[in-house]
Amino acid sequence: MTVMTDKLHEECGVFGIFDPEKTLNVAHITYSALYALQHRGQHSAGIAVNNEGELYCHRDSGLANEVFNEMVLKYLSGNYALGHVRYATAGSEGRENAQPFVIKYHKGQMAIAYNGNIINANKLRGELEENGAMFQTQSDTEILAYIITRERLQVQTTEQAILNAMDKLTGAYSVVMLCSNKMIALRDPNGFRPLCLGMLGKAYVIASESCAIDAVGGQYLRDIKPGEIVMINENGLQSNVSKSTGCGSLCVFEQIYFARPDSVIDGQSVHHARLEAGRCLARRYGIDADIVIGVPDSGIDAAIGYSYESGIPYALGLIKNRYVGRTFIQTKQNEREGLVKIKINAMASVVKNKRVIVVDDSIVRGTTTFNLVKLLREAGAREVHVRISSPPFLNPCYFGTDISSRDKLIACRMSIDEIRKTLGADTLG
Amino acid sequence: MTVMTDKLHEECGVFGIFDPEKTLNVAHITYSALYALQHRGQHSAGIAVNNEGELYCHRDSGLANEVFNEMVLKYLSGNYALGHVRYATAGSEGRENAQPFVIKYHKGQMAIAYNGNIINANKLRGELEENGAMFQTQSDTEILAYIITRERLQVQTTEQAILNAMDKLTGAYSVVMLCSNKMIALRDPNGFRPLCLGMLGKAYVIASESCAIDAVGGQYLRDIKPGEIVMINENGLQSNVSKSTGCGSLCVFEQIYFARPDSVIDGQSVHHARLEAGRCLARRYGIDADIVIGVPDSGIDAAIGYSYESGIPYALGLIKNRYVGRTFIQTKQNEREGLVKIKINAMASVVKNKRVIVVDDSIVRGTTTFNLVKLLREAGAREVHVRISSPPFLNPCYFGTDISSRDKLIACRMSIDEIRKTLGADTLG
Amino acid sequence: MTVMTDKLHEECGVFGIFDPEKTLNVAHITYSALYALQHRGQHSAGIAVNNEGELYCHRDSGLANEVFNEMVLKYLSGNYALGHVRYATAGSEGRENAQPFVIKYHKGQMAIAYNGNIINANKLRGELEENGAMFQTQSDTEILAYIITRERLQVQTTEQAILNAMDKLTGAYSVVMLCSNKMIALRDPNGFRPLCLGMLGKAYVIASESCAIDAVGGQYLRDIKPGEIVMINENGLQSNVSKSTGCGSLCVFEQIYFARPDSVIDGQSVHHARLEAGRCLARRYGIDADIVIGVPDSGIDAAIGYSYESGIPYALGLIKNRYVGRTFIQTKQNEREGLVKIKINAMASVVKNKRVIVVDDSIVRGTTTFNLVKLLREAGAREVHVRISSPPFLNPCYFGTDISSRDKLIACRMSIDEIRKTLGADTLG
Amino acid sequence: MTVMTDKLHEECGVFGIFDPEKTLNVAHITYSALYALQHRGQHSAGIAVNNEGELYCHRDSGLANEVFNEMVLKYLSGNYALGHVRYATAGSEGRENAQPFVIKYHKGQMAIAYNGNIINANKLRGELEENGAMFQTQSDTEILAYIITRERLQVQTTEQAILNAMDKLTGAYSVVMLCSNKMIALRDPNGFRPLCLGMLGKAYVIASESCAIDAVGGQYLRDIKPGEIVMINENGLQSNVSKSTGCGSLCVFEQIYFARPDSVIDGQSVHHARLEAGRCLARRYGIDADIVIGVPDSGIDAAIGYSYESGIPYALGLIKNRYVGRTFIQTKQNEREGLVKIKINAMASVVKNKRVIVVDDSIVRGTTTFNLVKLLREAGAREVHVRISSPPFLNPCYFGTDISSRDKLIACRMSIDEIRKTLGADTLG
Repeated sequence: MTVMTDKLHEECGVFGIFDPEKTLNVAHITYSALYALQHRGQHSAGIAVNNEGELYCHRDSGLANEVFNEMVLKYLSGNYALGHVRYATAGSEGRENAQPFVIKYHKGQMAIAYNGNIINANKLRGELEENGAMFQTQSDTEILAYIITRERLQVQTTEQAILNAMDKLTGAYSVVMLCSNKMIALRDPNGFRPLCLGMLGKAYVIASESCAIDAVGGQYLRDIKPGEIVMINENGLQSNVSKSTGCGSLCVFEQIYFARPDSVIDGQSVHHARLEAGRCLARRYGIDADIVIGVPDSGIDAAIGYSYESGIPYALGLIKNRYVGRTFIQTKQNEREGLVKIKINAMASVVKNKRVIVVDDSIVRGTTTFNLVKLLREAGAREVHVRISSPPFLNPCYFGTDISSRDKLIACRMSIDEIRKTLGADTLG
Repeated sequence: MTVMTDKLHEECGVFGIFDPEKTLNVAHITYSALYALQHRGQHSAGIAVNNEGELYCHRDSGLANEVFNEMVLKYLSGNYALGHVRYATAGSEGRENAQPFVIKYHKGQMAIAYNGNIINANKLRGELEENGAMFQTQSDTEILAYIITRERLQVQTTEQAILNAMDKLTGAYSVVMLCSNKMIALRDPNGFRPLCLGMLGKAYVIASESCAIDAVGGQYLRDIKPGEIVMINENGLQSNVSKSTGCGSLCVFEQIYFARPDSVIDGQSVHHARLEAGRCLARRYGIDADIVIGVPDSGIDAAIGYSYESGIPYALGLIKNRYVGRTFIQTKQNEREGLVKIKINAMASVVKNKRVIVVDDSIVRGTTTFNLVKLLREAGAREVHVRISSPPFLNPCYFGTDISSRDKLIACRMSIDEIRKTLGADTLG
Repeated sequence: MTVMTDKLHEECGVFGIFDPEKTLNVAHITYSALYALQHRGQHSAGIAVNNEGELYCHRDSGLANEVFNEMVLKYLSGNYALGHVRYATAGSEGRENAQPFVIKYHKGQMAIAYNGNIINANKLRGELEENGAMFQTQSDTEILAYIITRERLQVQTTEQAILNAMDKLTGAYSVVMLCSNKMIALRDPNGFRPLCLGMLGKAYVIASESCAIDAVGGQYLRDIKPGEIVMINENGLQSNVSKSTGCGSLCVFEQIYFARPDSVIDGQSVHHARLEAGRCLARRYGIDADIVIGVPDSGIDAAIGYSYESGIPYALGLIKNRYVGRTFIQTKQNEREGLVKIKINAMASVVKNKRVIVVDDSIVRGTTTFNLVKLLREAGAREVHVRISSPPFLNPCYFGTDISSRDKLIACRMSIDEIRKTLGADTLG
Repeated sequence: MTVMTDKLHEECGVFGIFDPEKTLNVAHITYSALYALQHRGQHSAGIAVNNEGELYCHRDSGLANEVFNEMVLKYLSGNYALGHVRYATAGSEGRENAQPFVIKYHKGQMAIAYNGNIINANKLRGELEENGAMFQTQSDTEILAYIITRERLQVQTTEQAILNAMDKLTGAYSVVMLCSNKMIALRDPNGFRPLCLGMLGKAYVIASESCAIDAVGGQYLRDIKPGEIVMINENGLQSNVSKSTGCGSLCVFEQIYFARPDSVIDGQSVHHARLEAGRCLARRYGIDADIVIGVPDSGIDAAIGYSYESGIPYALGLIKNRYVGRTFIQTKQNEREGLVKIKINAMASVVKNKRVIVVDDSIVRGTTTFNLVKLLREAGAREVHVRISSPPFLNPCYFGTDISSRDKLIACRMSIDEIRKTLGADTLG
């Protein structure tokens, strides 16, 4: 069994590369990028390559370094590559749902990988089935592929097929595709999920987060715009922005929770967004205290921001087990005790007899925060003031996070003060 | 292949528990403790239990969560347990060298696990062979077991056998043993390696670091003294301090590098020791700068200390991939590029145009530090001032770290200023 | 690497069961049946079940006992089950090509498993693609499923859809399908591949060979007729023979090579067919000799028949390694030596100074037979007379065997006497 | 779970090779030999090599082809090799008990592999422990190694040490050892277990059965004599027969059950011994019948012998699943039904309305034979006459077969006629 958490789960990560000079080991670069994007999904990993127009793919359940080995990477030669790491939502854990998804159809072959959530997936699936489609997976990617290939039968270009498909799709989707002779990247018109563009020498790279471009030694250029379609091949890069509205709605959880702090998303440093949220908290919910601590890993940035703004010293009051994230065998006994100490320990020598401000990125179901407050009190903290760097999480978002209903969301059931009492905190901001 | 680093490698971790009331799942508690001690060794893991006087053991290559599963833990029932995680030095990677080591001899059975380095191992091995011993492993543990069992043939008690054995052993050793009717813990007279004692309800626990006692919900009581032998069974705890000199020589790397910051070793918080080292650096090697950053994970504490003392703001300038530590497939290409970006990325938005003080715990071979300085400069840092919280590492220590010769130690070959130039740093402290 | 042979490879095996009383463990029975059909395919195995109208499937590369374990079989509960073992031809080894194939379409769900070879697969695939189909595998099964589901959109019943599909399919196919509320079995109008029907208590069973019905303790009833469609559910069994021509063309290799001797195919015992072939050989190619020996396993039956007819004593002159069939690591050295001794050894004490008649089922590429003659001569045989129980294999058949071109077929390139000389045999019949 | 049988289990197999010219791939040859000896033990496999005086070993649980792969065989370079396949008796399944056993001691290194059963193992173990030995396994091999190395401390040569050790050992043992500069093979003075000598070009080979020498392309020379010690190195072969009594007592089960029919043991073809036993049965327990059938695999030879002597035609009445031997997942349901059909099926078309003589090699616990008789009757046999080619098995032998007590042996509890009735046979011979 796995370490359970009441945090929102991360989303998928995609990466694409096209090397016009055919000098790079594109599969290995993609592997390195998936390693850097691993925080966005740990359930499956896959890489497809285009080798002289033919697509080859390897994908399976597991982390990138479990799915791939030297031999497999060697076999995946080519000058286009497409990679994916996936967080599996309920019912889709099977390896048949791993991406990239590779198909053959009337106009050729296609490999497709995406990050997002198609809201009208069931409706689209029904319509496709009525027209003779048969489905082999539970994955929305299969629907995406069908919509695009069906449109492609009607129109002259893949570009137009994608534009038509975008008219039918509702939801969040950042997609990268390999065709026989090009790589295509696109982002839904709202730009719910990130996707950015970079260069590695003369090669183009596309990634969910800029940290993956850094990891492979490339240069971040810009974000793909909400609604933009980018096509890349020997002739360079072409952009179609006819679906672009000019203003996106990047999911707030990307900045406060999902992304790595060293990524830049839609032009803004994730770290700085979190730092600023911390400063904001200090201004709006300031209180006198001895130290400010952050909940590792994603609360650290905001805690430092809070410290900068308030002048209260930042301290290391919580320490996270470096090996958490790996599976952990649970027993009944552990479950009762909340497992929290296995993951995070309080530093008694730091918090003892102190008035502590603890900054976290979010309260979702409340139990993690409750356990942290308890942990800090047991370690001797005199006061525990909880500060949360995101707004109350009132509605489960349909665009990709894994919260099944409002009932489980603490902010839906209680007022801020009720939540504070439930958490056992002295104040809550 | 694994991610290479020029850091000193961690050492082994041991854990023991005796539950007089037979109500606890001692194997699972030991597993949780090994999970918390995983940073001390990732090459093999093992648990032995004493079930009504009979010893059972399961051990293999891999992390604790790879070696164990629910079924195996269920099978390991008993009321004494002994666990070990191991960092394997060259030539000892094989699973036959995994600990605990379990043997049958004239006076019964014994399971033994240790953390340390026996200096006179080869000499002792030779003497034992002359007396008819045959060896099946390359592990010093087999020598330890032989020495103690041979002595045991001569004297009335295991306690006396251990005292005699300690006279013959030179080196660092923190040992926990299970016999048919007791658990024994001991530490070499110099106390090079840590070992501490705690309670979990009515159960006694022994651990390399106090963080493991915290992780299982227990209370840290005290450290085992250098030279002390502790025997635990139904009659409670007995201590023999006849070999204790009163003053130990805890390996400096435990406080600055090996241990988890939330552990308390020989009465001192690891975090505070590092914080203090940072303050110290600020006093002795102060310089004007815009921000202080720490090298994750073990340089963070000292960086915060430096910030406290100097008043220069602490910032998050380097971000570590949470998934590092897992294996990573390398290619020639990666090796040239030093792989450092796969592990650690610089936060351009934080360091750009800044005068940066970067605090690390140690410079061992120099390449990691060199790469970090380069990374920070590429990210736009105007000045990079390196501050190292440990003294120059001049002599490879024979008591357990994994540096094969002085040639590789940068501090042996150059002066401080030469090192500074080699690292590309503006100043070095 | 695997033990290479120049024998024709076996074909797939299918098995289906419907238990109207819901008292049987249908997944385990199917597993046992696949174990009995394992000689028909060793590359992948799979079982799908229908549990209250929902289909669940587990399939992977490997032998039945590698693919399944107790937990998986437990999870596959239901009262319909469908199993498949597959011999993979070039390019289809991947586990995504494992059967049964499970899909969702407009009219519901379907699991399909088949044994055969669709001759016009490429043409059908092209037509389907033109109508918007996309393909995820290289398997003909995906085409079969598409053809049937497409037809199903036009007509009222699955039965009619299958009849229409059969009009479009050219080739060999014995198919078993699970729908939400029935099991369907069919055989192509030529009946190239076997398929038979039995009962296990009140449960209906369908199997490629009757030995699988025996293995699960059932009773063989009859063969499915060439062109027959059988539908089985709570209302019993319905047969549609409108495509049935009354006369089939069972592949000759089923009787002489693929099938297990204890199976009954199209009303005839495989063993007796082989025995009779042996008698026939004795009559047509009789020669004086001391002993008759058979090449294990499939030449034994005919050798006994030869002995019966000729009166020459049957003897055990060749012994097969029981563990052959499992993978064997090869080196260059082995390849030169033909590996034949690893597989089969000659019994010197039996053949020494004897005139030996050796009976095999077929000569395909010739090297195996050549090596056997050499082996027997080295063991001291004075004369070696080869008798082959099948007619010269002149044309590669397009209906399912794995011989890529006529060039490799020894009987296409040489006369009988040339072959005899090449084989080093004294006579050849 | 595995297919259960009430047959006696096979014993271990050993193989050794010394290549003076250093041109052979000795590890791969040993692997091929273990493949040929696999019928003697399926629980673990191992190979040790001597490379310029240094010993390297790889061993694990599993079949030879599961334990080894190309990379491992490549790593095992050298010009001496020693291999072992093991059937594990209760309590010794663990991989730590796999052989060869490799140790370092005062006089150097030693790899040792053996087939047999040391009767006075517990006594010897006790004496060794009193003298300071500690044991890490439950394996008798560890005792063998200790006895020899201890003796070696007292005397000048390994040869003399082995002679002294043989004085202390009671039981069955065929041993092959690698030292730093020679290979040694020996057989206990009774010669309970087989061991033979051959040549492969200029290389010496030692094997449990001659079929392994055949399999690697070598020539069988002779058997190692009971009590003989053979030493092989650059100077050729030296034999010491001072412990040889001239007359051995080869275990009867070797000829009738354990060995492969193509092996020659103590000068006699196993096949011919079985054939002769069949002729003998026909003479002593002749009866009129229509056909003679053998129980595969080890009853076939005797059935043919019976047929020769009696003139009653030999027929294939029972067919064995080629994949038996691999693991099979059992359920309660299967257990009740005896599983026998999964393993062996009766050929109805052969036995129907016939008077059948069925020849098996032994009746041990009786259930297998009972099930076979039942199977044949269900298949329509009119009369079933059981003929067993070994004498009644009255006493469990202490020298290596795996029958825990006399209670389970059918011949101990009943008279021949009672057994016949229990088996449901018409006659029993």
